[in-house]
Amino acid sequence: MTAADRILLGHGSGGKLYRDLVRDVFVAAFANPVLDRLDDAASLATSGRIALTTDSHVVQPWRFAGGDIGLLAVAGTVNDLATAAARPLALAAAFIIEEGFFMDDLRAICASMARTAAEAGVAIVTGDTKVVERGAADGIFITTTGVGEIVVDHELGAQSVRDDDAVILSGSIGDHAMAVLAARDEFHFTTTVESDCAPLWGLAEAAIAAARDTAPAAAARDTAPASAAALRFLRDPTRGGLTTVLAELAESAALGVEIEERAIPVSAAVRSICDLLGYEPLSLANEGKMVFVVAPEKADAVVAALRAHPLGRHAARIGAITAAHPGRVALRTVLGTRRVLDMPVGELLPRIC
Amino acid sequence: MTAADRILLGHGSGGKLYRDLVRDVFVAAFANPVLDRLDDAASLATSGRIALTTDSHVVQPWRFAGGDIGLLAVAGTVNDLATAAARPLALAAAFIIEEGFFMDDLRAICASMARTAAEAGVAIVTGDTKVVERGAADGIFITTTGVGEIVVDHELGAQSVRDDDAVILSGSIGDHAMAVLAARDEFHFTTTVESDCAPLWGLAEAAIAAARDTAPAAAARDTAPASAAALRFLRDPTRGGLTTVLAELAESAALGVEIEERAIPVSAAVRSICDLLGYEPLSLANEGKMVFVVAPEKADAVVAALRAHPLGRHAARIGAITAAHPGRVALRTVLGTRRVLDMPVGELLPRIC
Repeated sequence: MTAADRILLGHGSGGKLYRDLVRDVFVAAFANPVLDRLDDAASLATSGRIALTTDSHVVQPWRFAGGDIGLLAVAGTVNDLATAAARPLALAAAFIIEEGFFMDDLRAICASMARTAAEAGVAIVTGDTKVVERGAADGIFITTTGVGEIVVDHELGAQSVRDDDAVILSGSIGDHAMAVLAARDEFHFTTTVESDCAPLWGLAEAAIAAARDTAPAAAARDTAPASAAALRFLRDPTRGGLTTVLAELAESAALGVEIEERAIPVSAAVRSICDLLGYEPLSLANEGKMVFVVAPEKADAVVAALRAHPLGRHAARIGAITAAHPGRVALRTVLGTRRVLDMPVGELLPRIC
Repeated sequence: MTAADRILLGHGSGGKLYRDLVRDVFVAAFANPVLDRLDDAASLATSGRIALTTDSHVVQPWRFAGGDIGLLAVAGTVNDLATAAARPLALAAAFIIEEGFFMDDLRAICASMARTAAEAGVAIVTGDTKVVERGAADGIFITTTGVGEIVVDHELGAQSVRDDDAVILSGSIGDHAMAVLAARDEFHFTTTVESDCAPLWGLAEAAIAAARDTAPAAAARDTAPASAAALRFLRDPTRGGLTTVLAELAESAALGVEIEERAIPVSAAVRSICDLLGYEPLSLANEGKMVFVVAPEKADAVVAALRAHPLGRHAARIGAITAAHPGRVALRTVLGTRRVLDMPVGELLPRIC
């Protein structure tokens, strides 16, 4: 092991070591014509409406079953763009690294970011690195920011949601949180659960297309591009889980949500860890799931489109919007009882993303 | 002092505490119609070419004479956009906060960010917060990402620089680095030096306008908007200082740079600390300065325009581009000798920005 195997404070300077790090690690991993210029700001061509989103990633440990902080950092930002129906156009990546971090680990993280960006069809076009002294940060933190082009021409969001709309979930919940918890080894359990961490633009695009499809007769009468207005709302249930997404939706829309517990996919492995440790799957973080609210007449088409996508095989209609109890989320349990889902107050599992 | 005065791990959850923090601190400080929607991604209208830039800020201590991490985080990103001749359109801010950080300090930092953003004519439209446990980060780290609209239609950058172009510096150097060093109190010196930290879009805009101005006769003949192509290159000399900017420029342009030490503004206070501690002002970080390379016939007009701006009063032509020694920066010292300026290798002063 030599000094060259580890990150030094000098790698965070503006000098030669910094430039070498940028060229040998970041540009080597992310190579693309915009990044390769190494300007302080990247230039992009765009038109119309763009979406902007940012997320810091502090997951601990940085590697877990099914993913790592690099996959998470790219997927998380792509997924936030997807919630605005925005095709990812470019990503920026900012690294804060603790002195002494292994260079090979940084390379592995960058390789994971590059793979995930390629999967999502987007390039990392600009970035930054700061190195802090030992003890001033815990390993590595990555902040990714995304710019996307919005592909729908209607307003998406809670204010577009209507009474009787369908609530659709793209797959099983709780996998990411339980995979990270297992990687921490605090509770000394082993599990086959893997994080669901994945970039969901392709999945969101399939749902947008399904919401846009018109019946052949209507399509023949009208040559204008069909609207995707039947798609009202998209949100990825990360920190705070499904509960938080639905509680915020109910509050913002001033409408109620009715959910069927039976319809919510939860893997047997996640359910058994939750039973053991007292967690509620509905409030656990996910990194590869999406909640859609869709006009009822398009719900079946959207579920079918999601199920045809590799990341949406277990998609299900899990409930509906209702005017009956504005601001409240009601869960009909598997026992047939009803209870109100409240937003969790504090931190369930710190540093999950 | 109550728990409400400090950041808790729960403030980093997706739940109620997180939402309260976002509303009571961030939205209260940065209020604008896009942010107020609290969507996962912000929507922006744009057209044409945009610039994207990101920077993490880890300065220690977070408050210093003349500024704080909030001012730095906004100004740094605005200035990176300015290097692409991009008018700031929107900012994203991502916070990583150590558990136990004082809420009042966070409020002060946000107020500083809001003031600086207003000064630069830009809004903070989206953000993120992660809280890590005590000891996992050193106080607060802020990553700001900026999107800007590029206002020139020619290529800016090292590849546009020509033999005999003028090199212009917008003011004195070394102030930021020395102000932060003084705030650390490691060397037990007191000084009147304040950081130069400031958003420079207005200054860059003045230089762009001066480079674009045509003589009245030419303007009368031609009603098309004048090109700003006389402005070749802009760069803010942050980490690594003026030396690094010029060394990188020489290398990328495959041209030489000749600099007059006598022409470079350095305050008496910065010079005396440098003499005392053995620092080289040319390699110190700045946060409110800009280097311009301009066609020789526009150099006087650009210097005059900079001097007419409050942040460019000490602007000076400090040298020229030369084909004589490609890839090298030569400094003519105050003693009349010549020496080559090499890029610093490692870290001079860690956590300066």
